[in-house]
Amino acid sequence: MKRPDGVGGSAADILIPRLHTGAGDSGGGLHEPLFAGNERKYVTECIETGYVSSVGSFVTRFEKALAHYVGASHAVAIVNGTSALHLALVAVGVKPGNEVIVPGLSFVATASAVVLAGAIPHFVDVSNKTWGIDSADLRAYLIASFRREGERFMNKETGRPLTAIVPMHTLGHPCDGEGIKAVAEEFGLAFVEDAAESLGSFSGVKHTGLAGNAGVFSFNGNKTITTGGGGAIVTDDAELAARLRHLSTTAKIPHRFEFDHDAVGYNYRMPNINAALGVAQLEQLPDLVERQRSLHRKYEEALGDLTIGNLRSESPGTTSNYWLQAFLLESELAPQRDDILNGCLDAGIPVRPLWKPLNTLTPYSQSPSAPTPVVADLYSRVICLPSSASLVS
Amino acid sequence: MKRPDGVGGSAADILIPRLHTGAGDSGGGLHEPLFAGNERKYVTECIETGYVSSVGSFVTRFEKALAHYVGASHAVAIVNGTSALHLALVAVGVKPGNEVIVPGLSFVATASAVVLAGAIPHFVDVSNKTWGIDSADLRAYLIASFRREGERFMNKETGRPLTAIVPMHTLGHPCDGEGIKAVAEEFGLAFVEDAAESLGSFSGVKHTGLAGNAGVFSFNGNKTITTGGGGAIVTDDAELAARLRHLSTTAKIPHRFEFDHDAVGYNYRMPNINAALGVAQLEQLPDLVERQRSLHRKYEEALGDLTIGNLRSESPGTTSNYWLQAFLLESELAPQRDDILNGCLDAGIPVRPLWKPLNTLTPYSQSPSAPTPVVADLYSRVICLPSSASLVS
Repeated sequence: MKRPDGVGGSAADILIPRLHTGAGDSGGGLHEPLFAGNERKYVTECIETGYVSSVGSFVTRFEKALAHYVGASHAVAIVNGTSALHLALVAVGVKPGNEVIVPGLSFVATASAVVLAGAIPHFVDVSNKTWGIDSADLRAYLIASFRREGERFMNKETGRPLTAIVPMHTLGHPCDGEGIKAVAEEFGLAFVEDAAESLGSFSGVKHTGLAGNAGVFSFNGNKTITTGGGGAIVTDDAELAARLRHLSTTAKIPHRFEFDHDAVGYNYRMPNINAALGVAQLEQLPDLVERQRSLHRKYEEALGDLTIGNLRSESPGTTSNYWLQAFLLESELAPQRDDILNGCLDAGIPVRPLWKPLNTLTPYSQSPSAPTPVVADLYSRVICLPSSASLVS
Repeated sequence: MKRPDGVGGSAADILIPRLHTGAGDSGGGLHEPLFAGNERKYVTECIETGYVSSVGSFVTRFEKALAHYVGASHAVAIVNGTSALHLALVAVGVKPGNEVIVPGLSFVATASAVVLAGAIPHFVDVSNKTWGIDSADLRAYLIASFRREGERFMNKETGRPLTAIVPMHTLGHPCDGEGIKAVAEEFGLAFVEDAAESLGSFSGVKHTGLAGNAGVFSFNGNKTITTGGGGAIVTDDAELAARLRHLSTTAKIPHRFEFDHDAVGYNYRMPNINAALGVAQLEQLPDLVERQRSLHRKYEEALGDLTIGNLRSESPGTTSNYWLQAFLLESELAPQRDDILNGCLDAGIPVRPLWKPLNTLTPYSQSPSAPTPVVADLYSRVICLPSSASLVS
């Protein structure tokens, strides 16, 4: 039951005491890692055996455990999420000069990976339900903005071919992977899922990252699990997995002693010492996700009755890892967003806004873009809340 | 004093017993890391404090210690050597479609980094003295093969501009950095030194990697020191260092809470946990280099009197880290190279040849190349010997 939050107080005055007493008073960063398992043991094992580099059993163990957890046939461990996305795009066939559909709302790496592959991000709006790409809207936009030329879809304005779609599961909440898959198939596009934020999130019983040709995870220090820096690509396509594995090294042809290479390799493999950390973290993943979900309940208790806005809760039919807890201000309070952010930070509560819309950033200002009113709206009034797993016990 | 090595025996029959009894009977890999210092302590500290990612004090400590050791003003820690070379090329101004001079003799990463930057490697021969690019030969080749067009030098055959030179210090032995610097200046070319193998190697009193606009090191598991996977870029140019640091992250503009980015970032920063390993390894670098030099003396004792070939020793005026010990067979024994390699491997002695000449590899077969007779000759008769620091105490 909602009740008025108070009379005459600013949104910051209302929100900050609730965060202090109820949840989120971390005294630390926005999303800090928790090492409560075998991290020290496995990392020490690496050092004692001398296997710290990309030759080492923890890389294979990490890949197998990750593939098993998400239900993919193959996982390839990569040096970080950006590089994983870059390599996945190359491996599914994105070529320099191609356009790639990217949501206007995402961490900048979604767009930069496209540029690193030599391609051009083409931004689209997101749904105000999932905060990710909506498949019906996407389909309508593609029909209106691209024309078929033989096997390819060309941008009517730029004349460039569209070759891939990269949706992202914002803050850990699954968007419509299956719907986007159908659009990708209809238009003959490669489909790479940016699941950097959504390890532990499911649409129905299907883990995010499995709907497309390949799915990408990040294990940066602020993610649900961390390997220091790290990422991974999952796929059910054995041939694609083999290509990813080959290109993520130096593309060396197996030989007893000869150094021969049949492609340009990226040297993007995750080192063994980082994978050791990852194996220990994966062992705790169910607990870490449960902590985030429990933290969400704690925020519901603290903020659920406020009328100044609403907590972002999981969409029907999905199970979210609640990677980053978020509070959506009522529209009329959007002008107070910066005051709230500054007020919280002044009070020692680590908050942040959503990312600036990608199509407003200098390096992407020349990239094609659909109108993105929902991106602009969400950006104007979302407050991301402290989300470290240590905030609940 | 040389004496005949025996009558009627093959080169393998002569070499293998000497390696077994004298040196190199490692029972392990060709070049394995040695962790005898604070590796466990520092890595454990990372885990206990939670700082394992790119935010963390070990990255800064590693950069400062590395810069101090080599005598550079700035060092930027990167996720691996290939990525460091890629980013250095981008930061010094190499553009897609440019040509970049690369030695035909190098690990494949020297060429792949050029391709990752969108440019085309242009291979040149090496000197049979330094096993790296010779500045006089390079100058003569550039004059013959390129023509000046305004500020630029264009390949007479391909019409593409030449923008950079990337020499490499083969197996740790310094090549003519100062001479190449003069050529780079004469032709207005950027100069990036691939010092991946030469941490601890000096020309006179100057450390390798300092002659050019930027120098690149690798800390892969097989290098003199390791960070698991890792690399670094050193430079005396403060503006270049700032650009490298900015591009190696997500190119975020500093702000209390806003996510704004003014360039396409590479996300190539070294994680803190890898830097922790690196700080511990750097503390032992003088000892690790002394071990390699001592191992060379051990090989001199074991193999120095053989007439079937010669150990690779440091060139006059240089101090080598002897990263990889090497034995150069007499020319007439080149046809026995593979027998020796197989014989050693069968006997449990981890050896390998030099890398296949880069201009013979499939992905670079269409790249322009000078004639490379010295590369071909060295490739045909060098045996790289076991070089782990643990082979001496």
